[in-house]
Amino acid sequence: MDAARLEALIGFLALADRLKHVERRGRTVAPDGAPRQENSAEHCWNVALLAVLLHGEVADPPELGHVLAMIAAHDLVEIEAGDTFAYDEAHVLSQAARERAAADLVFGALPPDLGARLRALWEEFEQGETKAARFAMACDRAQGFLQGVIGTGHWRAMGVTEGATNGRMDPARRVAPVFEALIAALYDRARQGRMFAEPRE
Amino acid sequence: MDAARLEALIGFLALADRLKHVERRGRTVAPDGAPRQENSAEHCWNVALLAVLLHGEVADPPELGHVLAMIAAHDLVEIEAGDTFAYDEAHVLSQAARERAAADLVFGALPPDLGARLRALWEEFEQGETKAARFAMACDRAQGFLQGVIGTGHWRAMGVTEGATNGRMDPARRVAPVFEALIAALYDRARQGRMFAEPRE
Repeated sequence: MDAARLEALIGFLALADRLKHVERRGRTVAPDGAPRQENSAEHCWNVALLAVLLHGEVADPPELGHVLAMIAAHDLVEIEAGDTFAYDEAHVLSQAARERAAADLVFGALPPDLGARLRALWEEFEQGETKAARFAMACDRAQGFLQGVIGTGHWRAMGVTEGATNGRMDPARRVAPVFEALIAALYDRARQGRMFAEPRE
Repeated sequence: MDAARLEALIGFLALADRLKHVERRGRTVAPDGAPRQENSAEHCWNVALLAVLLHGEVADPPELGHVLAMIAAHDLVEIEAGDTFAYDEAHVLSQAARERAAADLVFGALPPDLGARLRALWEEFEQGETKAARFAMACDRAQGFLQGVIGTGHWRAMGVTEGATNGRMDPARRVAPVFEALIAALYDRARQGRMFAEPRE
């Protein structure tokens, strides 16, 4: 690897470090019981771990290396665009445009071939059409929901009803029976813990 | 997936959440310039990202899915054993025994087949003998060193000299020329920034 390529790689890695400072709405809980907001880098690791655990549970699984590479890259645009809370409708409407501009900056920091590789992974994830992208999406959404259960309270605090979560979780449920079962078990816990906001009359 | 298997999986995931609270000595830097200690979950994501970027740069690369699964699993024992600072000799001496006991607890929380899968990945990483384990180790060490450069100051504060780091980085350098080149570029930055502690006379 020549010097210019190394410089670009190191510059990108210094930029990527900032994903550790992008806060999500879901929370993680310290061993002493104190919750704090999860960040997007932690989330990406956790989604990868879930993918490793569930990969053997689906019929006709996608290629694991491709899935895990996609998961490692899928939130990098948040370094520039920030995390978009899935239940903030106005923010979701502007998300695609913000993230596309961010992608030019973030992936553009890499040597062109490496930038194109990560950008293609991100676009495949966003389009959600391939088997690998659908599996990665299901892991991403299941992990987000899991974090809502573990971190208890952010749905209620944000006014998110159970009904509002279904539109986001239904596509994940449809990917494979294991996702349907896992998500059903998580909903049971969320209901038992009264974690959702009450619907307005 | 039956109910007992789901319960064990969710219990394990709640335990795995704690990796986000295991602090490493290296630091990450917020966009406003404030450094804080990196945690092991963030580190695992960052090592995976580096593996994706460098995988195409080595001759005869290992299978990427296997490497990335190993990286996702390689620090889970720290949930129970804590992170061991590589330059704390006494702590390093007790590391293997602490981590083996932790592995029984952490991997034992999973359904047996999934626990065995993650434990095998962790053991392969620790033994460092396969092509995949050597590549993962080199990414792990290069990322740790990179974080020292990005987060500037922890080596000096901990009394770690340049010479002390070589014993840890030499095995990574030997994995492939790209690691040698990347690590050399990072040493240049560390020297220019006077980031290492001075050797005692």
